Amino acid sequence: MTLLNGKEIANQIKDEITAEVDKMKIRGEKVPHLAAVLVGNDGASLTYVGSKVRSCKRIGFESTLKHLPEDTSEEELLKLVKELNDNPDIDGYIVQLPLPKHIDEQKVLLAVDPDKDVDGFHPANFGKMALDMESFIPATPFGIMELLRRYEIDIEGKHAVIIGRSHIVGRPISILLSQKGKFANATVTLTHSRTRDIKALTLQADIIVSALGVPGFLTEDMVQEGAVIIDVGITRVPDDSKERGYYLTGDVDFDAVSKKASYITPVPGGVGPMTIAMLLQNTLLARKRRAEKS
Amino acid sequence: MTLLNGKEIANQIKDEITAEVDKMKIRGEKVPHLAAVLVGNDGASLTYVGSKVRSCKRIGFESTLKHLPEDTSEEELLKLVKELNDNPDIDGYIVQLPLPKHIDEQKVLLAVDPDKDVDGFHPANFGKMALDMESFIPATPFGIMELLRRYEIDIEGKHAVIIGRSHIVGRPISILLSQKGKFANATVTLTHSRTRDIKALTLQADIIVSALGVPGFLTEDMVQEGAVIIDVGITRVPDDSKERGYYLTGDVDFDAVSKKASYITPVPGGVGPMTIAMLLQNTLLARKRRAEKS
Repeated sequence: MTLLNGKEIANQIKDEITAEVDKMKIRGEKVPHLAAVLVGNDGASLTYVGSKVRSCKRIGFESTLKHLPEDTSEEELLKLVKELNDNPDIDGYIVQLPLPKHIDEQKVLLAVDPDKDVDGFHPANFGKMALDMESFIPATPFGIMELLRRYEIDIEGKHAVIIGRSHIVGRPISILLSQKGKFANATVTLTHSRTRDIKALTLQADIIVSALGVPGFLTEDMVQEGAVIIDVGITRVPDDSKERGYYLTGDVDFDAVSKKASYITPVPGGVGPMTIAMLLQNTLLARKRRAEKS
Repeated sequence: MTLLNGKEIANQIKDEITAEVDKMKIRGEKVPHLAAVLVGNDGASLTYVGSKVRSCKRIGFESTLKHLPEDTSEEELLKLVKELNDNPDIDGYIVQLPLPKHIDEQKVLLAVDPDKDVDGFHPANFGKMALDMESFIPATPFGIMELLRRYEIDIEGKHAVIIGRSHIVGRPISILLSQKGKFANATVTLTHSRTRDIKALTLQADIIVSALGVPGFLTEDMVQEGAVIIDVGITRVPDDSKERGYYLTGDVDFDAVSKKASYITPVPGGVGPMTIAMLLQNTLLARKRRAEKS
């Protein structure tokens, strides 16, 4: 069994980006600038956004955090989105989800300039991805593809079973794995809450991507010998013995499943760090595209 | 075995649209106007476009055919696309594919105003569809969904196996069948040319959608008893005994497979007529949306 060390690969990618940014600086070029919009004080969101901003600093990107109060109106948020669209200094930005309930998330995402949509959540980018055109690929599925590629895991013709059909993981990874291409061409089954017998399908899978958010969902009896296991679930389980008051766990019963798997991602340290690395990668790409255009 | 009579259902839909158009006329409102752009003289394309224009006339739509010569430049075609975008009288239009080789198809499709893109081929519409937002759904997969709905075939939790990952059929139908919703919620496996053992998968399928274009591909030994069979393949096979010089056939070995199937579409008279009906449906929708906006 090989551990898919997302943390290590993410650091490799960040080093590569840093090297590019250093060259940009030497050439006197503008460096990538990522902005993050956070509304309210959700604990997990604060952690994610903080981590993204810190990563920017570490690799030499400029970064801007727009932290708005919980009671920000939809109108105010849309005004900020417009400002970010119009600001030539910002190459890309993210609006951290979830947004407070009084704000229409879809309306806000649709207002983001697709050319600055480094999360790849805008339908214009999603559609391009699905139709094999150049776009911004959502960071989590992009990170999974990159992890498979860097470990040179052959997925062509393999049967991948995805658990969960979310817009940000399940749906896009089902598309990316089944596209034409050297590190793609998998046969993909997308399963979800209405699937009758998930186990019958996962038992046939060469690759399983679990993006459900249910701790311990994928058990040893659901997995065939030699399968590649990608665990996207990240759940905070309350634990008073930890300084933070919780520990992180994935969808996979790691101890048992890892004995059968050929490759497996840990949680934490698997898909999570890759997500941030690919967000930075997308921001670098946004900068390059803007430089080409100007 | 029940024959999924696409021709009959398509006529029902056209009757429903005609009734709506009649009401529009009585109210003195503008009726839907579909334009079709055809470049060159490909035989199948001429047939398809002719059929679309005739259907418009029959149901009371206005229609415009822009038939350009084979040697039309990309620039000229893009100019026409811009004119159609700007023409307030046109509610929706299609650019018949394939285009001559000297024209960049993707560039042309991207130039179509998404609000007039009744084929649903623009990434902005495709992305909205994939993200469960309101959009124009490509006519062929839309027609398949409508056929299943009108025959009240329960697909929730059923295993659908799609053969072929094209942008206009395989990929979108894999998304639509697996979406949340009453006439959706299927578990979907998308297979293609690189799939290792298609038969092992089709044998597990409750629903098979074949969109390959290979006559007789789906044989009786690949299908389990009671499966629902949707045949999207339409191939012209040369035949001197026919007046037209060819006959149409699907991907399915109909005589043998129909003995096992619970429901099956014929070719011709199955998915084909539904495609045209849904194009008209999309054009009606385009008109209504434009009326709401103005």
